[in-house]
Amino acid sequence: MNPTQLSVQLNCPLPKLDFEVITLGHGSGGLLTHRLLKAGVFTILKNPLLNEQHDGASLNLSGPVAFSTDSYVISPIFFPGGNIGELAVNGSINDVAMCGAMPQYLSLAFIIEEGLTMNEFWEVLLGIKKASEAAGVPIVTGDTKVVERGKGDKLFINTSGIGAIHPRAKIRISQIQPGDKILVNAPIAQHGVAILSVRQGLEFETSITSDTRPLHMIVRKLLDECGEAIHFLRDPTRGGVATVLQEVASQAGVGIELVQSHIPMDEQVEGACEMLGLDPLYVANEGVFISIVSPQFSERALQILKTEFSTAAIIGEVIAGHPGQVVLKSKIGGRRVVTMLPGEQLPRIC
Amino acid sequence: MNPTQLSVQLNCPLPKLDFEVITLGHGSGGLLTHRLLKAGVFTILKNPLLNEQHDGASLNLSGPVAFSTDSYVISPIFFPGGNIGELAVNGSINDVAMCGAMPQYLSLAFIIEEGLTMNEFWEVLLGIKKASEAAGVPIVTGDTKVVERGKGDKLFINTSGIGAIHPRAKIRISQIQPGDKILVNAPIAQHGVAILSVRQGLEFETSITSDTRPLHMIVRKLLDECGEAIHFLRDPTRGGVATVLQEVASQAGVGIELVQSHIPMDEQVEGACEMLGLDPLYVANEGVFISIVSPQFSERALQILKTEFSTAAIIGEVIAGHPGQVVLKSKIGGRRVVTMLPGEQLPRIC
Repeated sequence: MNPTQLSVQLNCPLPKLDFEVITLGHGSGGLLTHRLLKAGVFTILKNPLLNEQHDGASLNLSGPVAFSTDSYVISPIFFPGGNIGELAVNGSINDVAMCGAMPQYLSLAFIIEEGLTMNEFWEVLLGIKKASEAAGVPIVTGDTKVVERGKGDKLFINTSGIGAIHPRAKIRISQIQPGDKILVNAPIAQHGVAILSVRQGLEFETSITSDTRPLHMIVRKLLDECGEAIHFLRDPTRGGVATVLQEVASQAGVGIELVQSHIPMDEQVEGACEMLGLDPLYVANEGVFISIVSPQFSERALQILKTEFSTAAIIGEVIAGHPGQVVLKSKIGGRRVVTMLPGEQLPRIC
Repeated sequence: MNPTQLSVQLNCPLPKLDFEVITLGHGSGGLLTHRLLKAGVFTILKNPLLNEQHDGASLNLSGPVAFSTDSYVISPIFFPGGNIGELAVNGSINDVAMCGAMPQYLSLAFIIEEGLTMNEFWEVLLGIKKASEAAGVPIVTGDTKVVERGKGDKLFINTSGIGAIHPRAKIRISQIQPGDKILVNAPIAQHGVAILSVRQGLEFETSITSDTRPLHMIVRKLLDECGEAIHFLRDPTRGGVATVLQEVASQAGVGIELVQSHIPMDEQVEGACEMLGLDPLYVANEGVFISIVSPQFSERALQILKTEFSTAAIIGEVIAGHPGQVVLKSKIGGRRVVTMLPGEQLPRIC
């Protein structure tokens, strides 16, 4: 994006600064840090809490709250469907949502590699602003560090999120029971394939974009309607659906049966996975979540998911047999055990 | 520290792992991540909230709380008086404390450069465990990412902290009034000089150690006794005392007068600063904080500080004159304006 497009998108003039790249001085805590933050970050992300500019934000919270943190080291920082800024906002919103809570506040911490251009930085900030506004979750406190060239990789972001736990939420691994249904909201493996599509040496023509999006509103609907019947929630980011379900089976001491033909997947994504020799069950997602729901409420939960996600599906169930194991019934009728991702399928995916 | 010493210090056997360095696979979210976390991190830092191992922690909080975040990119990660782990725990504890709050929970997020040895990682975890236990503030949620060699620098850590605001705290820049006294708890410039002393090419013989320590208990005592009379608190880390006070003067629209001879400083630190051509007012601190206190309570506040810090002092006052300016009365009787750190004095100091 050029400065004019950025300015239009940000709906405010870009600050006039006499530097075009970020230098170590911008991480000094001194004059340059102030100029960068005052001229840019505080203006773009402004809200009453952030405007206090103290070491931390003072928030009103009550009752049980969920607290989560994640660092984002995705490479490249710009990718089809978003940038590291959107990912960092949506990612921590979703981690809080998976605890059965409504995210209310986010922190934002940058580790910038010296030499990042201001244009790149504004574009990431635009992603942050858009995602934060779309989700209705403000950035209330933050930090900016700069490291020397070759000691980072353009930009790493940490976000932490806090929010009140839904009064009817009882999301706990120990709630999971044999008979529970396993639901997924949206087609899997999209984020991982979108990132691969832009990685050097692996470029191929595709319109696949990252599925980064906030999931807290759909989680809220599920909890409003199904309450305690929602036994567990988890977003299968790194390691994919397979790793998350293997972890659940092992922690809950239950078996899991998946039906491959029920797992929603985009045709292009499926094709790309075949071409690249990737098992989509291990490919990272950003806007996908797994719900484990009591059988009495599974159809109701599916209807709720379908109001926003047309391809939502019941993809399997929890069983008492083969505790600790996830078994997949394949499309051609075979059965195979699904283990945890053994090594690294695709580094720096989130 | 060798593995035996580490094991003794950790008060538990080190986990047996078949790897000696951290690889990209440890950031996959899959099997290797699990082995690293289960075998090590969860055992060493164990507490009931962390043990849930969900995407986030569920906390009980009530009333107004402070929320703060900081990334730590210090180089080197081991330095006289501590390591990046202790710094990350104490740093965010102090940021929450500076809001007039009692830190209750911390998050912990690692960005590890591939190739970090397990021995280094355990030693950092030991620092984290010690600092967290000493302060009584548990790590309740976390994240681990690994980046390729040359895309990070051994280890970056982000911690975010939350805690309830003291019922009598009214810490706000707008509370600052002409006549207020400026107090400092401890000798300045120690942390920055300790780091410089181990930086390549600048090594000199010294016993100066980082002053990293938690400040929340002394802040609590101040607030218990002086309440609303404590108008402002801030820990002058990056940019030092000068930058923080310049920021305060400018934001509050007041003048500040400092008396150089009242500012506590260790003789060795002073000597090192002279030798290196550094102005100690700009050198980073970790265990130092500035309190701005109403004149009626300044002696009482000083007494409280002195119960723990023998060299605590009133170093200046807020005046109505020269708003936005900090003026230092030097030891030889001159007066000079203290500006904000213009560039970068010492990169990667915290």
